Amino acid sequence: MQQSSDGTPPYDVTDPAFALHVGGKLSTTSTVPLRDRDDLSLAYTPGVARICTAIAESPELIHDLTWKSHVVAIVTDGTAVLGLGDIGPGAALPVMEGKAVLFKEFGGVDAVPICLACTDVDELVETVVRLAPAFGGINLEDISAPRCFEIENRLKERLDIPVFHDDQHGTAIVVLAALRNAARLTGRSLGDLRAVVSGAGAAGVAVTTILREAGIGDITVSDSKGVLHDGRDDLTEVKRLLAGATNDSGLTGSLADSLRGADVFIGVSGGVVPEEAVASMAQDAIIFALANPHPEIHPDVASRYARVVATGRSDFPNQINNVLAFPGVFKGALEVRASAITESMKLAASDALAAVVGEDLREDYVVASPFDERVAPAVARAVAEAARSAGVARR
Amino acid sequence: MQQSSDGTPPYDVTDPAFALHVGGKLSTTSTVPLRDRDDLSLAYTPGVARICTAIAESPELIHDLTWKSHVVAIVTDGTAVLGLGDIGPGAALPVMEGKAVLFKEFGGVDAVPICLACTDVDELVETVVRLAPAFGGINLEDISAPRCFEIENRLKERLDIPVFHDDQHGTAIVVLAALRNAARLTGRSLGDLRAVVSGAGAAGVAVTTILREAGIGDITVSDSKGVLHDGRDDLTEVKRLLAGATNDSGLTGSLADSLRGADVFIGVSGGVVPEEAVASMAQDAIIFALANPHPEIHPDVASRYARVVATGRSDFPNQINNVLAFPGVFKGALEVRASAITESMKLAASDALAAVVGEDLREDYVVASPFDERVAPAVARAVAEAARSAGVARR
Repeated sequence: MQQSSDGTPPYDVTDPAFALHVGGKLSTTSTVPLRDRDDLSLAYTPGVARICTAIAESPELIHDLTWKSHVVAIVTDGTAVLGLGDIGPGAALPVMEGKAVLFKEFGGVDAVPICLACTDVDELVETVVRLAPAFGGINLEDISAPRCFEIENRLKERLDIPVFHDDQHGTAIVVLAALRNAARLTGRSLGDLRAVVSGAGAAGVAVTTILREAGIGDITVSDSKGVLHDGRDDLTEVKRLLAGATNDSGLTGSLADSLRGADVFIGVSGGVVPEEAVASMAQDAIIFALANPHPEIHPDVASRYARVVATGRSDFPNQINNVLAFPGVFKGALEVRASAITESMKLAASDALAAVVGEDLREDYVVASPFDERVAPAVARAVAEAARSAGVARR
Repeated sequence: MQQSSDGTPPYDVTDPAFALHVGGKLSTTSTVPLRDRDDLSLAYTPGVARICTAIAESPELIHDLTWKSHVVAIVTDGTAVLGLGDIGPGAALPVMEGKAVLFKEFGGVDAVPICLACTDVDELVETVVRLAPAFGGINLEDISAPRCFEIENRLKERLDIPVFHDDQHGTAIVVLAALRNAARLTGRSLGDLRAVVSGAGAAGVAVTTILREAGIGDITVSDSKGVLHDGRDDLTEVKRLLAGATNDSGLTGSLADSLRGADVFIGVSGGVVPEEAVASMAQDAIIFALANPHPEIHPDVASRYARVVATGRSDFPNQINNVLAFPGVFKGALEVRASAITESMKLAASDALAAVVGEDLREDYVVASPFDERVAPAVARAVAEAARSAGVARR
């Protein structure tokens, strides 16, 4: 352990998070016996040569005879780690290890952290394409917007395995599931809702996309400078497309302006929403304030005006946590050896997650707990079935 | 499982190697508890953010607080897999998985197969440099010569973690250990030996290098066209350097010619050595015929003329197996967070491996069994100590 001159480690040893992280959180394990020369001659030379030859002759056998079909690469460049920003690939490793732990514990999926020392889009895409042969899927993580959109799109074109940027789609799947249940609870259909999304980064774009796919027609998106509309000349290409696809009523102004009369607020941005703007929302409002650790609207404030309140935090009800999605999504996709994760598979995952709540639906229970053991199998089943329907399943 | 139209898998299901490989040989495991929200908030958000911040501020903490210090990337491009040749990265995966299993079982070192879909030297080097941040070491494997030499050298220049091409140095370490013991058994010093190396690929070059470092002055190396000497105009740069550094007596002609009167034959080439050439070797000859599965000289033939015979096979005595080296080498290097694996560390590994045999030395026991549990700890201790002496240890 690194020590300062007085022999103590340079971090707070009384912080249980540090105590837990000493030595890391992950290891690799053999799943075959290795007791004697006979075992060795099967798992390694000379026996392994027959397996290699078989795969060289019939490449699809790699799925049967290696760990490819159950291992995911968790790829980051460390440019947008949690709320910490661009801290680099090394400092991002604890998050990727944690993600690998969650993949295994919740989805039974093996996962390996890959922290890349490059940020150029071309280089990053090429690097992932080159390391893909030994992996069954690519989970992109904590890559900054708008680079993350192009990287994911290009990798999806280049690779025949699932590529999934969890900061986008994991969040979107869980948000839609919770919103579906919140609408059911308050007696509204998704098509009737007027929604406001605060944040036009990775999560904001993906949430908006899945809400549109689910039938919510009236969506307004804001970035830090206010509502996205066609009249703004300061938009990136992604935001320009988003402005064109939303805000049908042509709102301008601030996020607070757009909240007046809105049924739904979804915050994936950070920042603070003034209480008077919250008060201006419609009856039976639904507020998902997902910034972590500081929600855009504190749940105590939100509860004064809204019927359903969700956050990203585990110490309040209705935690919107990506772990409700990605383990099951990859589990299902890998089980049928899907060549991609389609929009229909994401929608199916969201529906399955929403359905877990069932008749227990209440204001403080619109989404299942991360520790609900029904979640990952239900999501996986739905994703596998949707992959078959979409024609991307390979078994 | 892939099946043919009659429902049977397209390989010999009665072959125990295939039965063993179904589903692969490797998995990842969490080493921390994940029972409830408290555990989750330490291993993942929000607790993990404090770990990331600490590493961003003090990058060396990555060694303490992640799995980096105990995980190795096993990197191949599939261009020289076992004796099978250029079968590609996918078909190479079973070997890399097997290697990962051996790393863990014999050295307690975690390891991840990385099979790269690129063969260009520049691309391969760049790719490994980019993926290095999350790994404590790079084990290069089954990369064809002469590309492997440049790739290893350039990676050693670029990275501050151990880079070790096992086909070269693992083989060299074990060969030297066995040869040291064989010389002791036959009452000769290494400096008195006249050695013939058959093969000028990855293993041949590294074996020759370590034999020279260990004090064997009289070495002749052959490739498929005969003895390497300065008069040949068909040599690659690596072979030209090798010719210049060996064959002081200026031999020309065939491998068989060079064997006349030689004390030591080391075959790392394949091919067959005629029995009459074997018969022409010196008294108390030492024959290491390491081609697998077909030794250059069958042990039954070799035994007629040689005092000590070793092969790469597990079904004959004195198996020269890389697993005697690489798990301990990386275990030792990682324990002291070595920034490189120096020549002195390889020599120390070899000495420590030789010493395990101790007073039990016999003609059919010049090298320890792969299952001798003393090997990896002894090699690791020696490597760690040599790293400290060489000034490359970081703790």
